[in-house]
Amino acid sequence: MRVLPFLGSFVALIIGATSILAEEAAVVHDAEYYILEAQNGKVWEVEDGELDKKLAELKEKYGTTPNLIHLMWDDQPFGAVGIPAMQQLRGFETPNLNQMASEGLLFTRMYTEPSCTPTRAAAWTGQYAIRSGMYSVGFPVEYEGFAAENITIAEVLSDAGYSTGFFGKLHLGDIEETYPHNQGYDEAFTALYNQAVSLWNTHAEAANAVVGLKSELLAENRYQKDETFVRDGYVFYIEGEKGGPTREWCGIEAECYRKFDIEARDRTFDFITRNAEAGKPFYAAWWPLWTSFLPEAPKETLQRGLVAESYHKYLDPDVGQLMALLHDLGIAENTLVIAMSDNGPMTHNPPAGAGLGEGPFRGGKGDYLEGGVRVSAQAWWPGMIEGGRIAGDIVHVTDLFTTFARLAGALDHIPTDRVIDGVDQTSLLLNGDGFSRRDNVMIYSGPVLGASVKDHYKTHWLSSSTQALGGLTSVYDLYNDHREENPIVVGGFHFKEPFRRMRARHEMWIQKYPHIPRAHGPAYGGIENARPETVALSEAPEALKNLPFGMLDYIEQLPNLPFDPSGDVGIGGN
Amino acid sequence: MRVLPFLGSFVALIIGATSILAEEAAVVHDAEYYILEAQNGKVWEVEDGELDKKLAELKEKYGTTPNLIHLMWDDQPFGAVGIPAMQQLRGFETPNLNQMASEGLLFTRMYTEPSCTPTRAAAWTGQYAIRSGMYSVGFPVEYEGFAAENITIAEVLSDAGYSTGFFGKLHLGDIEETYPHNQGYDEAFTALYNQAVSLWNTHAEAANAVVGLKSELLAENRYQKDETFVRDGYVFYIEGEKGGPTREWCGIEAECYRKFDIEARDRTFDFITRNAEAGKPFYAAWWPLWTSFLPEAPKETLQRGLVAESYHKYLDPDVGQLMALLHDLGIAENTLVIAMSDNGPMTHNPPAGAGLGEGPFRGGKGDYLEGGVRVSAQAWWPGMIEGGRIAGDIVHVTDLFTTFARLAGALDHIPTDRVIDGVDQTSLLLNGDGFSRRDNVMIYSGPVLGASVKDHYKTHWLSSSTQALGGLTSVYDLYNDHREENPIVVGGFHFKEPFRRMRARHEMWIQKYPHIPRAHGPAYGGIENARPETVALSEAPEALKNLPFGMLDYIEQLPNLPFDPSGDVGIGGN
Repeated sequence: MRVLPFLGSFVALIIGATSILAEEAAVVHDAEYYILEAQNGKVWEVEDGELDKKLAELKEKYGTTPNLIHLMWDDQPFGAVGIPAMQQLRGFETPNLNQMASEGLLFTRMYTEPSCTPTRAAAWTGQYAIRSGMYSVGFPVEYEGFAAENITIAEVLSDAGYSTGFFGKLHLGDIEETYPHNQGYDEAFTALYNQAVSLWNTHAEAANAVVGLKSELLAENRYQKDETFVRDGYVFYIEGEKGGPTREWCGIEAECYRKFDIEARDRTFDFITRNAEAGKPFYAAWWPLWTSFLPEAPKETLQRGLVAESYHKYLDPDVGQLMALLHDLGIAENTLVIAMSDNGPMTHNPPAGAGLGEGPFRGGKGDYLEGGVRVSAQAWWPGMIEGGRIAGDIVHVTDLFTTFARLAGALDHIPTDRVIDGVDQTSLLLNGDGFSRRDNVMIYSGPVLGASVKDHYKTHWLSSSTQALGGLTSVYDLYNDHREENPIVVGGFHFKEPFRRMRARHEMWIQKYPHIPRAHGPAYGGIENARPETVALSEAPEALKNLPFGMLDYIEQLPNLPFDPSGDVGIGGN
Repeated sequence: MRVLPFLGSFVALIIGATSILAEEAAVVHDAEYYILEAQNGKVWEVEDGELDKKLAELKEKYGTTPNLIHLMWDDQPFGAVGIPAMQQLRGFETPNLNQMASEGLLFTRMYTEPSCTPTRAAAWTGQYAIRSGMYSVGFPVEYEGFAAENITIAEVLSDAGYSTGFFGKLHLGDIEETYPHNQGYDEAFTALYNQAVSLWNTHAEAANAVVGLKSELLAENRYQKDETFVRDGYVFYIEGEKGGPTREWCGIEAECYRKFDIEARDRTFDFITRNAEAGKPFYAAWWPLWTSFLPEAPKETLQRGLVAESYHKYLDPDVGQLMALLHDLGIAENTLVIAMSDNGPMTHNPPAGAGLGEGPFRGGKGDYLEGGVRVSAQAWWPGMIEGGRIAGDIVHVTDLFTTFARLAGALDHIPTDRVIDGVDQTSLLLNGDGFSRRDNVMIYSGPVLGASVKDHYKTHWLSSSTQALGGLTSVYDLYNDHREENPIVVGGFHFKEPFRRMRARHEMWIQKYPHIPRAHGPAYGGIENARPETVALSEAPEALKNLPFGMLDYIEQLPNLPFDPSGDVGIGGN
C-alpha cells in the first residue's frame, strides 16, 4: 500500500509525490524480458498501435476504460474446468464455467506460484512472491504478513480512477497493514486464511478431529504441561473500507464459514451493480473460499469429492449469474473477466474426502512441477475476445497486474523502483494464440528457485538428479514428457549453459532490486470489535505474566522455512 | 472366415446351412450383459423402437443401410486428437481430426485391448482377443495367426450384402487363412506386421541399427555358430480378392514402406467411390501404418516426435480428404465413420525419437492400466450424430462389431455358438452421453485377466498389492484417481466380493463357450509371386538338410507367453 492509515497525511504526501515523479520512468521488467524485447520489440510496437486503437474505440463506445474482474479459486488442476472432455474423465461438472470458456479464451499454459499465499501475493504485486517475501502459506496466528511497502494492483488502478473491491480469501497474513482495505481497495470483505478453517471449528472437529485445535473435544492429555501453546482468539473474517475502521465479521463457527462465500458473492455483485450504474470503471478481486471440508450429502457430481462438489454446487452457478448480470447491466462487452485456479490440486495429504487428485501433470500444490503451477484458466470478454479460442502460450499470474494496468490506462502508476515480473498480455487476449510476450517462468519452491521454464523446456534446479549429475542435466521437454519423468540428459546437454545464464540474469536483477521482506507486528491490529481473547493474542496470557521477554519481542525473528536454502528442500509443499 | 478356399464348396455348403439354422438363435453375450439387460432391457426396447424408426427413415432416403468406415491408427493416447486444449499440451496438431470430432461424438472412455494384435482381433470378431487366441503381438516369421473358425465383421456384413474392403495394417499372423481376403473381405491390401518393419530394412538399419536384423550392416561376429537363426524371406505387404490369388506387393525396402500408406489410402477412397457410385452399401476397414521410425526432417509440429509428425503430415490431411469425399459423393449423411487409436502410446522402450509419452493416464501400450487401453476415439455421421457431443460412457472396441451389424441389418448373421463381447451401441451413437449399454470391461494382459472395470471403479487382478493384501483390495476410483496410483483399500472393501462374482460369471461363460486357439501352418502360404527365399522359410535351410525333425513339425508347439499364467506377469507389455 502507498498510505498507511496510522502514518497520517504527511507521509502520504511524500509518497504521493515520489509516485508522481516516477511516472516518467519506465517499468522495470525481469531480465529475461529484455532478451525478448530486443528480438520482438518492433513487432510488439506495431501490435500495440493496433490494440490502442481498438481499446480507444471501446472507450469511445462505453465512456470508460474496461472493467476488470479477477475470479480466482483454489487448488484445481489444468482441465478441471473449461474443457468438457477433460473434466469428464475426472467427473467434474461446471457447465457455466465451460460456457464461459467456450465463449472466450482458454489458457493451456497459465502458470501460478505453487500455493495460495504466493499466488495471491503475485497477483497483487505483479511480482514473483519471493519479491514480497510471501512465498509460503501461513496459518493462524501469524503476527506477520504482506508489507506496506508493496504496491498492489488496487493502488495502481485506484490511482487511475477505478473503484476497487476485494471479496473473498486473502491468505497474506494477519497484521493490520495486510488488510485489503489498507492495501488500496475501496472496500473489502476478507477471509484471512484458507479452507482449513472449515476443519477448525467445533462442528467440523466433532466430525473429523484426530489432532484437534478444539482441545475440549479430545480426551484429557495427562502429559500436557503448557496450555498456552495454541490459543483461542483468532479472527477469520474481516470487513472494512479504505481509510475506515476494520470489523470482525460473524465469528469462527461453521455457520459463518458457510455464509461467508454467499456474502462475498452478494457483495461482489452489489459492487459491480453500483459502479455500473454510476458509470465508473471498476476492478473486483472475487476470490471465493467455497470448499468446505465438512462431509456433505447428497453428492451431485460424478466426482463426489468435496472440492468438485463445492464448485459444482456454488461457484459454477454463481459464474452463470455473473455473466447474466454483466449482460443485464449492459457492460459485458466492456468487462474483462479472468477466471482461474490459484495453484494445482492439493495432492499431498489432502483432507479426507476432498477428491484432490492429480490433473494431467505430475505433482500438485506445493510442487515446482507442472502439477503445482499449471492451472485451469480462462478469459471472457464478449466482443473483444473471440469465442472458442485456445492459447498454448505461456502466461503467468503476474501478467494480470500489468495487463490490467495497460487496459485501465494505468501503466504510469506502476512503481518503477522494483522489478515487475508481469508482462502486458493484452495482445494475447485480443489476438489469441501465439501472441504472448513471455516465454519463460521462474518457479520458486518457498524461498529457493525450484525450476525454470523456457519455451517448452523446463529444468529442475532442486532435483536429486541435478545434484547427482554434477550440474544442470535435469531438462525436460514438456511436449514429449509433460509429466517431467524422464530428463533428456544427453539430448539436453546444450540447454545447460543457456539455462544457467538465464538464472544468472534473474539473480543479478535481484541484487539490483532487492526483495521486500514480510512485515511483522501484532496480529489482528485495528479491529474495532475485537473480542477480548483476540486482543489478548498480542500479549502474554495470564498464566505467563512473569516471562523475561515480551510477547511481541520475538515476532521479528519468526523463522523462514526452509532454514537452509542451500540444502535439499525436496519438492514438498509450503 | 466361414469358407476356407482350399476346402472347396462341399464344406462351404454345410457351414452355410449351419449359419442359416443359427439365425433363429440369439446372440450370446458375455455374462455381465445379462445383469444389465435384466435391469435396463425394457428401456432399451423402447429406445430400439425409436432407433429402428430413425434408421428406416434414413434407408428410405438413401436406398441402402448406412456405409461403415472404421479408421484405426496406432498407439495414440486419449486426448492426442479431437480435444484441442488437450492435444496442445502435448504439441499434437490434427486440425482435420479435431474438426471431425467437433462435428461428431467424442468418446472419453473408449477401451481397446492393450496392444495392436488383440485390438485388431477384437474389432474383427466382436470378442475379447483372448477368445481367438490373438492376445499378443507377433513378429516375422510367426507360422501362426487368426484361425479360420473365427467369424469376422467382414463375413457378417458380406452376408448382409455389403461390399467389404480392408486397407492397411493387420498384424494378426502370417498364415494363409489369416489374410483379410480369406476372412470375408471382398478386397484387401494388407501390411502383415507393424511399424517395426520401418526399422528392418537396410535404409533404416544403416541409420539406427544397434542390434540389427540385416547382419550385413554389422561387424562380423566371430562367436556366431548358427547362420539360420534369423532368415530372410519375410513378406510385409500382400494384396488379394475374395476367392482369388494372393500376391506380395512391392517388397521389403524403405520405399515400399513409405508408399504403402499412400496406396492404402488411394485404394480406400477408390473403394468408397466405386461402391457409392454403384449404390451398394460398404464397409471399409482403413487401418493405416503411417508412422515411420526413420528420422525425418523438417519437423512441422510442436511435438516433433515421429508419431505426431506422421499423423500431422499424412493421416490428418487424409481425414480431411475423406470427409470431403463423402460429402462430394453425397453419402456423408448415410456413412458412419469411427476414427480411433488401437491402444495407448508405446511408453515402454519406444524407438528413438518416437515421442510416445504417456497421456493423462498411467502406463501405455501393453499395460492393463488406463494408459494402455483408453484411447482417442470419435464418431462422425452428419445428420445422424449431433455435432459437439461428448460421451463419458464406457464403450469397447468390440462394440463396433455388434453396432455395425445392427446398423447394417445383419444381426442375424452374427454367429450364436460363441460369446460376442461387443454390445450394440447404436443408442449411444444417436442419443449421446449416458446411452451406453455397457458398464464394464475385462482387460486381459496377454492370456491372463489383468484388470476389470465396472462403472468408474477398476480392480487390478495382477498387481503385487492384490497378492500382498490377500485378496481383492486393489480397487481404484477412476474419477478421483484416474492414474490408478492409490487403491481405495478400506473404502473399497465392499467392492471385493462383487468384483470376484463378476469375474466368476465371466469365467463360467468361458467354460461354456471355449476359446478358439490360434491356428498354425506354413508362413506366407498361397502367395502367387512368392520369392524363393519366402518359399524356403517353411522348409529347413540348405545347411540343415539332415535334421531329425521337419521344419513345420514343431510349429504347433509354438509357446504362449507367459508360460505360467498363474505366476506374476507384472504389468509389462505383450
